[in-house]
Amino acid sequence: MAKNNNDEQFKNVISHAKEYGFVFQSSEIYDGLSAVYDYGQLGAELKNNIKTYWWKAMVQMHENIVGIDSAIFMHPKVWKASGHVDGFNDPMIDNKDSKKRYRADQLIEDKIARYEKDGKTDKAAKLQNDMDDALKAEDLQRLKTIIEEHDIVCPVSGTKNWTEVRQFNLMFSTQFGAMAEGSEEVYLRPETAQGIFVNFLNVQKSGRMKIPFGIAQIGKAFRNEVIARQFIMRMREFEQMEMQFFVRPGEDQKWFAYWKQARLKWHTALGTDPAKYRYHDHVKLAHYANAATDIEFEFPFGFKEVEGIHSRTDFDLSQHQEFSGKKMQYFDNDLNEEGKPYGNYVPYVIETSIGLDRMFLLTMINAFEVQDLSDGEKQDSRTLLRLHPALAPVKVAIFPLTKKDGLPEKAKEIMNSLKYDFNCAYEEKDAIGKRYRRQDAIGTPFCLTIDHQTLEDDTVTIRHRDTMEQQRIDIKDLQSLIESKVSWRNLLR
Amino acid sequence: MAKNNNDEQFKNVISHAKEYGFVFQSSEIYDGLSAVYDYGQLGAELKNNIKTYWWKAMVQMHENIVGIDSAIFMHPKVWKASGHVDGFNDPMIDNKDSKKRYRADQLIEDKIARYEKDGKTDKAAKLQNDMDDALKAEDLQRLKTIIEEHDIVCPVSGTKNWTEVRQFNLMFSTQFGAMAEGSEEVYLRPETAQGIFVNFLNVQKSGRMKIPFGIAQIGKAFRNEVIARQFIMRMREFEQMEMQFFVRPGEDQKWFAYWKQARLKWHTALGTDPAKYRYHDHVKLAHYANAATDIEFEFPFGFKEVEGIHSRTDFDLSQHQEFSGKKMQYFDNDLNEEGKPYGNYVPYVIETSIGLDRMFLLTMINAFEVQDLSDGEKQDSRTLLRLHPALAPVKVAIFPLTKKDGLPEKAKEIMNSLKYDFNCAYEEKDAIGKRYRRQDAIGTPFCLTIDHQTLEDDTVTIRHRDTMEQQRIDIKDLQSLIESKVSWRNLLR
Repeated sequence: MAKNNNDEQFKNVISHAKEYGFVFQSSEIYDGLSAVYDYGQLGAELKNNIKTYWWKAMVQMHENIVGIDSAIFMHPKVWKASGHVDGFNDPMIDNKDSKKRYRADQLIEDKIARYEKDGKTDKAAKLQNDMDDALKAEDLQRLKTIIEEHDIVCPVSGTKNWTEVRQFNLMFSTQFGAMAEGSEEVYLRPETAQGIFVNFLNVQKSGRMKIPFGIAQIGKAFRNEVIARQFIMRMREFEQMEMQFFVRPGEDQKWFAYWKQARLKWHTALGTDPAKYRYHDHVKLAHYANAATDIEFEFPFGFKEVEGIHSRTDFDLSQHQEFSGKKMQYFDNDLNEEGKPYGNYVPYVIETSIGLDRMFLLTMINAFEVQDLSDGEKQDSRTLLRLHPALAPVKVAIFPLTKKDGLPEKAKEIMNSLKYDFNCAYEEKDAIGKRYRRQDAIGTPFCLTIDHQTLEDDTVTIRHRDTMEQQRIDIKDLQSLIESKVSWRNLLR
Repeated sequence: MAKNNNDEQFKNVISHAKEYGFVFQSSEIYDGLSAVYDYGQLGAELKNNIKTYWWKAMVQMHENIVGIDSAIFMHPKVWKASGHVDGFNDPMIDNKDSKKRYRADQLIEDKIARYEKDGKTDKAAKLQNDMDDALKAEDLQRLKTIIEEHDIVCPVSGTKNWTEVRQFNLMFSTQFGAMAEGSEEVYLRPETAQGIFVNFLNVQKSGRMKIPFGIAQIGKAFRNEVIARQFIMRMREFEQMEMQFFVRPGEDQKWFAYWKQARLKWHTALGTDPAKYRYHDHVKLAHYANAATDIEFEFPFGFKEVEGIHSRTDFDLSQHQEFSGKKMQYFDNDLNEEGKPYGNYVPYVIETSIGLDRMFLLTMINAFEVQDLSDGEKQDSRTLLRLHPALAPVKVAIFPLTKKDGLPEKAKEIMNSLKYDFNCAYEEKDAIGKRYRRQDAIGTPFCLTIDHQTLEDDTVTIRHRDTMEQQRIDIKDLQSLIESKVSWRNLLR
């Protein structure tokens, strides 16, 4: 029952996002492009505000963190060094009758879910275990045997006529240049992190950075996901906000603990119920990591990763040192000043990596509310987005009470004084109540109504989104009242 | 002579950009990737500031313009409809001996330049004319004949052993999905404009937009340029800031004139000498346009396009209507209210399209200055970036005079109060004069020096970048002084 309610809530958020111009299916007039979405006029503003919050919190507030913007195209050797060319694969299997291709592990997971639904808990647990072992050992033959042993059939053809399981690389590739003697294969980056690693020395030297220091980046990444699910949770084109923090070897666990805590604080500063978040410490670590945790949020479909904090050791810089032949070392003069010997070393790295689109979805889900306003006499409700005012796409909506008597002119005059600092909306159609509801639905924290009294005493009615409280206020006090609520300072303190 | 000075100046800007962390060659440790660049720690901030200026000026300041953020991946049919699949080509020719491939028109242009250098002006003009005619007629055979007639040889092999001229599409393509029955070819968008056109109805309806209105977008675009030239002027991966303004048919020329003027004002508001800008009205129009102009800036290598303003008629929306089978029409209720009959129509479009990377380069070139500070007694000079304070990557640099007596602590205390609102830098090494010069070189408008007097009376020395003037100021007045100079209001009024 709870699950059904959650499904319902998730569906409501998706249709709300479409209806009000937050998220559209990509190329919708051509029936869409699978696992790709566009941000609409309100979505673009909300997304930009989330970016700004992250950038200010990470770069502007930290004297020792700087931001870069590296290209999506990188030299192909980068992905040899990082391990993506050889290891960034999904195990795929084809059904010979339907000609459809599937991720082998997802076929098995669907079977596990069916066992659980049928109450066969032991069988489900054993299958999960078997699959995990096979995936860890990269034993493709074993995956196929599992599929056969458990009578897993193609959902389309209904047959068990399977090919072998093969590895399928998740990177998109394209041809670069137009050389007659053969053009060069270049990948679309599957993560932004490598753009930071290859620029480590450029930034460190030109910015005179001293360890510990961080390099941050926001940008697009691309993965050829075979089956994309859950709206903007897993897309083929997505955006990451990553920061790589370079530290002395031996100080990595201290900084891992620091960032684990600091990043959760960034999330909860938005006012989200801390109970909606949890850490998920990795037990099985990736080959490059010596510690890793996920920050998970309770989506309607369960707790899912929003951000990862990984202690990546010196793996990436050492790999680039080996593949490029360039020394990726730092000369630590401070060690000398502390009385310790001079030191050249490859720094250790703590990474914080958050999916911007997931953060966007989290924000929408968390803000979305259908509020019951019924009293004894009549049924009523409103849909609102309880967005943090600093994140709201529109800060102030301005309404002349009527379309005449100079009220629109006065309203525009007020808007023209506020629009330098705040995103404003202007509406003169429909009853004020209806206009309030439209702004509630897009998360606008303040509505101003300009009426006949305004023309006499330069006051307006300001109405607050969450409390629906209204107050009379001098026009000259508007700027500072709004500023005090929407300022980034409220989030950065 | 002037040309050599200009070459010199351009080289200086490029090396300055590298040295101070504005722009790095992409994947430099792997010897770079042709025609791709990364923005470093100061470049990323400057680029973000240019984006913010554009977004605020276009979206925030215009009640009837909204912004979106559509995906790089779009449905392949989009590029059939837009004409890019069939028509977005360069004419290429291979030399059979060297196996090198060239753009036929660039080979001919190099020959024209050589004629001019040799004083054969008539010959140069005739060749230019012949080539223009052949390009316009897409007569590839004629291009080859021209190359042969003018004895154009391969710069590598020195021979005239040429293949036929063939069309080469400039779009990058990749394979989407992992269908067993063959995956789908998808392009990286060569322009952001189509992401706006396909979302026209989504935005208009969900945002209740009324014509005239605009949709703006900032984003990456990709073109497989065969020969990329002049640093970040022409890259394979670049960023556009585009706005499509939808108007009634018949009002297009009025709005074309409006945006032509408004966009130039955006440029000159930054304080750039208006003589550095000029319009270049197109005489030969693209098939979709009924009027077009470029805003050109005088780069060291001559006047070049920075922004285009195009009256695109109803071409794009009509094409999408035809290819998608969806009506791309607007119902104009206002026509009725004006006493005219109701009207459903495909709107006309005025486009403003600016290259963000070119704007970045323009800004660096225009701000870069080596200033002679010699007096009768000694030679001296400084390098500075006269960036508009709103665009400067760092707003305030904070220097304790010495590393002791509590001055660093006091300096940090001041920084901690300013950093919520301004990007700050902190430096305590080297003489104050040397620290000033480093900040001049990156365009920081203000430097604050904290000395012993600060501890007594809470005043600091503020030093202005352009005038080098220094004044004593109360700490409590810093915030408003800096704000008054770096505020976006200065650019948006």
